[in-house]
Amino acid sequence: MTDERVLLAHGSGGKLMHDLIRNLITSPLANPILDRLDDSAVFDITGRLAFTTDSYVVKPIFFPGGDIGRLAVCGTVNDLATTGAVPLYLSLSFIIEEGLLFADLERIVSSIVAAANEAGVKIVTGDTKVVDRGSADRLFINTSGVGTIREGINISGRNARPGDSVIVSGTLGDHGIAVMSQREGLKFQSPILSDCAPLNNLVAEMIAVGDIRCLRDPTRGGLATTLNEIAGQSHVGIKITELSIPVSPAVTGACELLGLDPLYVANEGKMVAIISAASADKVLTRMRQNHYGCDAAVIGEVVTEHPGRVVMKTRLGANRIIDLLAGELLPRIC
Amino acid sequence: MTDERVLLAHGSGGKLMHDLIRNLITSPLANPILDRLDDSAVFDITGRLAFTTDSYVVKPIFFPGGDIGRLAVCGTVNDLATTGAVPLYLSLSFIIEEGLLFADLERIVSSIVAAANEAGVKIVTGDTKVVDRGSADRLFINTSGVGTIREGINISGRNARPGDSVIVSGTLGDHGIAVMSQREGLKFQSPILSDCAPLNNLVAEMIAVGDIRCLRDPTRGGLATTLNEIAGQSHVGIKITELSIPVSPAVTGACELLGLDPLYVANEGKMVAIISAASADKVLTRMRQNHYGCDAAVIGEVVTEHPGRVVMKTRLGANRIIDLLAGELLPRIC
Repeated sequence: MTDERVLLAHGSGGKLMHDLIRNLITSPLANPILDRLDDSAVFDITGRLAFTTDSYVVKPIFFPGGDIGRLAVCGTVNDLATTGAVPLYLSLSFIIEEGLLFADLERIVSSIVAAANEAGVKIVTGDTKVVDRGSADRLFINTSGVGTIREGINISGRNARPGDSVIVSGTLGDHGIAVMSQREGLKFQSPILSDCAPLNNLVAEMIAVGDIRCLRDPTRGGLATTLNEIAGQSHVGIKITELSIPVSPAVTGACELLGLDPLYVANEGKMVAIISAASADKVLTRMRQNHYGCDAAVIGEVVTEHPGRVVMKTRLGANRIIDLLAGELLPRIC
Repeated sequence: MTDERVLLAHGSGGKLMHDLIRNLITSPLANPILDRLDDSAVFDITGRLAFTTDSYVVKPIFFPGGDIGRLAVCGTVNDLATTGAVPLYLSLSFIIEEGLLFADLERIVSSIVAAANEAGVKIVTGDTKVVDRGSADRLFINTSGVGTIREGINISGRNARPGDSVIVSGTLGDHGIAVMSQREGLKFQSPILSDCAPLNNLVAEMIAVGDIRCLRDPTRGGLATTLNEIAGQSHVGIKITELSIPVSPAVTGACELLGLDPLYVANEGKMVAIISAASADKVLTRMRQNHYGCDAAVIGEVVTEHPGRVVMKTRLGANRIIDLLAGELLPRIC
């Protein structure tokens, strides 16, 4: 079994495919909804539903601190959490390039199981396609997810108001730099690990104590892109202070070396929150008690000036416009 | 614009990506839920939910009778319909190979819009990734979908009972042969078109008049695979009669030429239904009044003998076991 590989015939709908799916995918993921093996999962649900999707094409599929499986669960769980939803059920769809080692697929599925357990979600439906060699890059994963939103919760990129505080849940840039360094074979003195993590429990704790207006996970395009999106959706300005933005010394060093700006580097285990000024302290205190929020910091505020724009007070005291990325920074980081 | 192409930078999360998504994807698909542009779609829903996912990797992306966009909508709508659900909302995730023509993407998105309108579903959330040349094959699409199931409806591959009738909604093999002939540059006297179509309205009409036990769309692996799955899930035998299985003369001819068995060729606009014998006539009559069911036929029955197995009475009167496909037939047909 150790050097067995996925063949094109595993995607044909026949016996090989049924065996592959049963042995490597549905058995480790088993739960009563998935086990019915109908074309759709069926379950009862009531209320406001959140529904999201993401395809993951990260290269390489294994990187320090995670792999494409953990990423695919956490990314979709976090997208649900950004609307204040309790993530419940995920779909899981593989596009496999012919030649993928069974052992690699097994390792990724067990990483999916672990991440789903940590987040408290179930994989209830799925799909597996195999494409010929050279038509994909080892493995792409799509996860979609549904969750329920409690009555009274209204979190959206449109809700930022002047006076609100801007919080990030921890250090920036870890995921992007971890993937990039693995891809390029770079070695740093202290190894940089991806921050890839499910943040739904952190978010639930934040909602329990504070008045949360917007949540977004700063993945592709990093903090800069996320804040620009919120400023645009809410028609407000956002002011941040460079000195208050948490970045680890290792990521700072790697970014200097590589000519990257950590504000634009992807994160996979961080949340950006816009919170009423009145509850910012309480939320921050609570966040710092959570493993995934221990480096949380207030980094700025929402303002009436320069609507749609993000401005940063730099280390040297100047004001710099933080724009959307114009070109390409790091492809295939998630 | 006509020879503009997608660049790697279009996937970076920056300005280029925002422009591409707005101009080519979210504008044509606009609806109030999608237009919020949060990381998750949010809507109210109550009751039993069906949830499904499929990734589409068909090659080529344009084929006679359809394209990957129409396929991605219809496939997921049909998977929802197989549980008796009313399909409501779809997610849409693109994995684009660098170099895809804007014009091709536009054409596919407008085909998605048309299919979604026909099915009465809305695209409410999405994702776009771009990978470097050679890391994908032009375009892969994932759609996931949710729909609601009316109380009292219980349709599952587990519900077939001895005595039930087996119905197919029309001719078999059209999709697989259409894609295959396009890919291989084969020309037949009468062109063979993919049957790719949303069947949710047909299914709703069937449910309205009859006692439907199982529904499944015979895609990859064809009718043979679908019937084997149902026989396995329901622990029953299935007997079919070759002479009663509708296959168009053109597909019959092409299959003979290519050495393919239409029972194993993929369909994308057909439904296999297991129906109580008492209501089979009524359901069949109703199906034949629907454009997508006009060639519907009873092709066999569920039996107590040979549980888990499908047996076909051939044209010559012999009994042949119809097994799962052992190897590979037609890769990347959906």
